[in-house]
Amino acid sequence: MLYSILTLQLLFPVIGLSALAPRICNGGSSPYTYKTEYFDVPVDHFAFTNDDMFRMRYLINDSYWKPNEGAPIFFYTGNEGDIESFAANTGFLWESAPEFHALIVFAEHRYYGHSMPYGNKSLSEPKYSGYLTAEQTLADYVYLLTNLTTSARDLRTDIFVNGKKNVNKRTKRIPIISFGGSYGGMLSAWFRMKYPGLVTGALASSAPIWQFPGLNDCHTFARIVTSAFEIEEKSCPHNVRKLWTAIDELGNSKEGLEWMSTNWKLCNALKNKTDVDNMKAWISSATINVAMVNYPYPANFLGDLPGHPVRAFCKHLDEPMEGKDLLTATFKGLNAWFNHSGSAKCFNLSSEFGTSDLGLDAWNYQSCTEMVMPICMDGKQDFFEPAPWDLGAYVNDCKKTLKMSTRPYSIPKLFGGKNLETASNIIFSNGLLDPWAGGGVLKNVSESTVAVLLPSAAHHLDLRASNNLDPPTVTMARKFYKKIFRKWIADFHKQ
Amino acid sequence: MLYSILTLQLLFPVIGLSALAPRICNGGSSPYTYKTEYFDVPVDHFAFTNDDMFRMRYLINDSYWKPNEGAPIFFYTGNEGDIESFAANTGFLWESAPEFHALIVFAEHRYYGHSMPYGNKSLSEPKYSGYLTAEQTLADYVYLLTNLTTSARDLRTDIFVNGKKNVNKRTKRIPIISFGGSYGGMLSAWFRMKYPGLVTGALASSAPIWQFPGLNDCHTFARIVTSAFEIEEKSCPHNVRKLWTAIDELGNSKEGLEWMSTNWKLCNALKNKTDVDNMKAWISSATINVAMVNYPYPANFLGDLPGHPVRAFCKHLDEPMEGKDLLTATFKGLNAWFNHSGSAKCFNLSSEFGTSDLGLDAWNYQSCTEMVMPICMDGKQDFFEPAPWDLGAYVNDCKKTLKMSTRPYSIPKLFGGKNLETASNIIFSNGLLDPWAGGGVLKNVSESTVAVLLPSAAHHLDLRASNNLDPPTVTMARKFYKKIFRKWIADFHKQ
Repeated sequence: MLYSILTLQLLFPVIGLSALAPRICNGGSSPYTYKTEYFDVPVDHFAFTNDDMFRMRYLINDSYWKPNEGAPIFFYTGNEGDIESFAANTGFLWESAPEFHALIVFAEHRYYGHSMPYGNKSLSEPKYSGYLTAEQTLADYVYLLTNLTTSARDLRTDIFVNGKKNVNKRTKRIPIISFGGSYGGMLSAWFRMKYPGLVTGALASSAPIWQFPGLNDCHTFARIVTSAFEIEEKSCPHNVRKLWTAIDELGNSKEGLEWMSTNWKLCNALKNKTDVDNMKAWISSATINVAMVNYPYPANFLGDLPGHPVRAFCKHLDEPMEGKDLLTATFKGLNAWFNHSGSAKCFNLSSEFGTSDLGLDAWNYQSCTEMVMPICMDGKQDFFEPAPWDLGAYVNDCKKTLKMSTRPYSIPKLFGGKNLETASNIIFSNGLLDPWAGGGVLKNVSESTVAVLLPSAAHHLDLRASNNLDPPTVTMARKFYKKIFRKWIADFHKQ
Repeated sequence: MLYSILTLQLLFPVIGLSALAPRICNGGSSPYTYKTEYFDVPVDHFAFTNDDMFRMRYLINDSYWKPNEGAPIFFYTGNEGDIESFAANTGFLWESAPEFHALIVFAEHRYYGHSMPYGNKSLSEPKYSGYLTAEQTLADYVYLLTNLTTSARDLRTDIFVNGKKNVNKRTKRIPIISFGGSYGGMLSAWFRMKYPGLVTGALASSAPIWQFPGLNDCHTFARIVTSAFEIEEKSCPHNVRKLWTAIDELGNSKEGLEWMSTNWKLCNALKNKTDVDNMKAWISSATINVAMVNYPYPANFLGDLPGHPVRAFCKHLDEPMEGKDLLTATFKGLNAWFNHSGSAKCFNLSSEFGTSDLGLDAWNYQSCTEMVMPICMDGKQDFFEPAPWDLGAYVNDCKKTLKMSTRPYSIPKLFGGKNLETASNIIFSNGLLDPWAGGGVLKNVSESTVAVLLPSAAHHLDLRASNNLDPPTVTMARKFYKKIFRKWIADFHKQ
C-alpha cells in the first residue's frame, strides 16, 4: 500500500500532488523468469456506453505447471504499480509454485505499468481516468482467468456452431489461488468474495479492507507507526514528537533556516515557512513509509533501505533530546535511510522517496474516487503533528486537484464492509509492525476465513522471498499458508 | 421473464422490434397499499466518467414492520417492467409480510416504469442506454437498502465530525430477504451471491440463471412449451406442429389468404408472404407466452387470460387435424386466449400480446447487451418451425437495430456460471410447466442453496397471491419458503 499523500496534502496544502510519493522500484533485474503477455479486456465491464478495449499486461511462467494433475494457478492480483515490481517482491509465490506444480500469473492492474487503457491520455481527464476502479480491475482479472482456463477454440465453437453438440460441455475447472499484498491483498480477498466460482481461495497479506469511512478509527494508523518506533527505542517516538516544534522554532529565523539547510545538507536551502512545512511533511511521510517497509534485512521495495530501518533511525535518538541536538540526531537517522551507502552529497527533499511516478498518480485517482482511507493524527498517542480527518476537505481537494468526484462509502457498500460472515477460503495476514494492520482483519471471520497475526513483521513481509533474517513467525506462517492451500485444492477436487 | 422477441426476430427478420412484445399489465388498481418513494442513485456505480444521479422509484409499506423486534425487510428486486405491476402480481410477499412483521419494499429496476435515468432520452442512444445492466441495478438496490437501514443522521455525523466518537459505531443490521420472479429472481439470487453481507437470503422464483451461452441446451425452452401442451391434450402439439405448413399452403394463394383473413377475423387482411410470416410468428409467440402464464385461474399478468389457458386452447385441437379444419380449430383456441369474453370483433395481430411498451424496449436492450439467452427450435422435439440458435446473427442484429454491442459471456463470467457451490441461503423454485425452467437451477447446489420443483406450476406461480385453485405443491412450497425464511432470520440474529 502506498501511503496516500492526500492525507498529508490536507495537512500541508501547499505541497503539490506526488511531491511525497514513495516510489516502487524494482531494484534492478528480477530474480524470477517469466514471459510477458498481453490480453484485451473491455475498458468498461459494467456498462455499454463505451466499447473500447485495452491491452492489459500479465506475466506468466508455466515451467512448473502440471495441469493434468489438477495443479492450481497462483494468480497475483496486481495492485498500484508496475507488475514487474510486484513479481520481484513476491518471492513467496515463486518459492511455493514448484511444489504445487502451479501456473504462475501476475496480472497488471489497469492504469499502472504497461496497462494503460488510453496510453498517455489515461489520467488526463475523467472520461479516460474514470474507469480506474477496483470493480473494473477485478472484472479484468475474471476475463483474463476465464480466457486462460478456457481454450479459445471451445469458445469459438460454442458461439458459431448451432445445436447441442457443444452445449453443456463443461470447461475443466482449475483451482485458482489469488495472492496479493496491501491493496493487492484487498483485491485478492474481494476477488474470492465476489467471484468464488472462479477463485478457490485468497491470501490477502496486509490488506486493510476496513480502513474505510465508518469502519475504522482513523487514529490507528499513526499509532502503529509510533509504536513501531517505540518498540525499537523507548525515547525515539518522544523525540520525533518534539521534532516538529524544534524545526518550527529554527524555521522562524534566517539563521535557523541556514543552520538546518547546512547541517541537514539540503541540496536546496530552506527559504521560508513553506519550505519548512514541506520538510516536515517529507519527514512525516518518510517515517510512515519506513514503518511500512521495516524489514529485518536490506530491501528496496520503497527505496533502498538498510535492514531494520526503524532501528537504524532510532539508535540515533536513544535519549531525550531538544533543539539542535535533536535535529542533528534526526539528520543522522535520516542518513541511515536515505544515504546508508554514504554516497549522497546532499539531500533532495523532492527526490528521496519522492520521485513522482505514474503509479502514484493513478493511486491518487483511486484515493480520490473510491479508495478513501481515513488517517488522522493527534500528536498524543502518535508522534505526528495533529491532523484531524476531514472528509469534506478531502472531497473538495480531490475535486479541485484531480477533477474527480469522491464516493467515500462506495467500497464499504459494494464489498460488504464488516459483514463478511459468509466469506470463505481467505487468509488475512497482518504484520503488527505495519501501520495498515489497524485497518486489517485481525480476527477470524468464519471457519475458513482466518486471520494470521505476525508480531514482528511490517507490510506484507510474508509475501516476500524467504530470508535468513525472517522472524520465525513469518517462516511458520508461510508453512501454514501452504497447508491451507493444499486443503483448498483438495476440497476443490472433491467437489 | 418476457420472452425475448429477438430470437423470433431472427427467425422472421422482417418483423419489427416489439411487434410481438407481450405486455405486462397491472389489470386495474392494485389490491395492495403502499407509499411511492424516490431515491437518488448514481447512474454509474463502477466508473467515474459520469457523475449523473437519477431518481429510482420504490414502493414501501411499513404498516406491519416491527424493527425493534429484529423483523426483516422483504425486498422485491424489481425486474423488467413497471414496479407497480410486480407489486400487484407478487401476492405471496404481501401475504407473508404480516406474520414476519416485515417492512415491504418493491424497488423499480432502472430504465423501467418511472425510473428512467435520462427521461425520454434514456433509450435513445448508447451514451444514455448503456447503463442498463444487471450489475448497475444490483448496486442501485445496495444503495437503496443501505440508505433504508442507516439513518441519514449517522452518515452525516460520520462524514463531517472528526474524531473517534462515531467511528466503529455499527449500524444496527436488519435481516433482508430478497424476492424476485423470472429475471427478478435472477437478480434476487445474484443479489445474495454478490452482497451476502447485506442480503440475508433470496427467494428466486423461476429464475433461469443458466439460460446463457455455454451453460444450457438451447432446445429445452421450446421442448417445455411443447410438453406443457402435450400434458393437456396428446394431439395438441402434433396439430400445432402441422399448423405452420397448413398456413404456408393457404398463404400461397390469394384465395387462401382471403380464407384465413376472413375465417380468422383479422382486422387487417393478409396480403403477402410477409404478413403470413408475421402471423406465424405471432402465433408462436402466443404459445410461448401463454405457456409461461399457464395458471390454474384467470389472470392478467401478460394479457387477460382464462384459467388453464393451454387447456382452453388444446381442447379445440383434441384430435389429429389437417388443413382448414386445423386452422379453424386453432382459431377457436386463439379465441379462448384473446377473446374469451367474446367482445372482440376482429383480431389485430400487432395488438393482442403485442402492445409495444417501454418495458419491452428496455428488455430488448438488455437482451442485446448481456442478457443473451439462447433459445432454438428443431420442429421435432418441439412443435415450432425449426429455428437454429445463431449467436453471430443475433449479435449483428443487435448492432444493426439497437446500435448496441453484445457481450454474450458477460453474465456467465460475472455471476459464476454453474459454479455456485459457495452460494448460500437461496431458494431456486421452478414450475415444471414453465419454459424457462430449463435454464433454472433444478438441483440443490449447496446445503442452503436449494431447488424447489413445482410440477403443476407455470412461471413463478408461487410468488402470486394464494388462490383456491393453486396446486397443492405450490401451497406447500409457500409454507416451506416461510419456514426457511424463519431459519435465515434466526441464524442472522445468532451471529
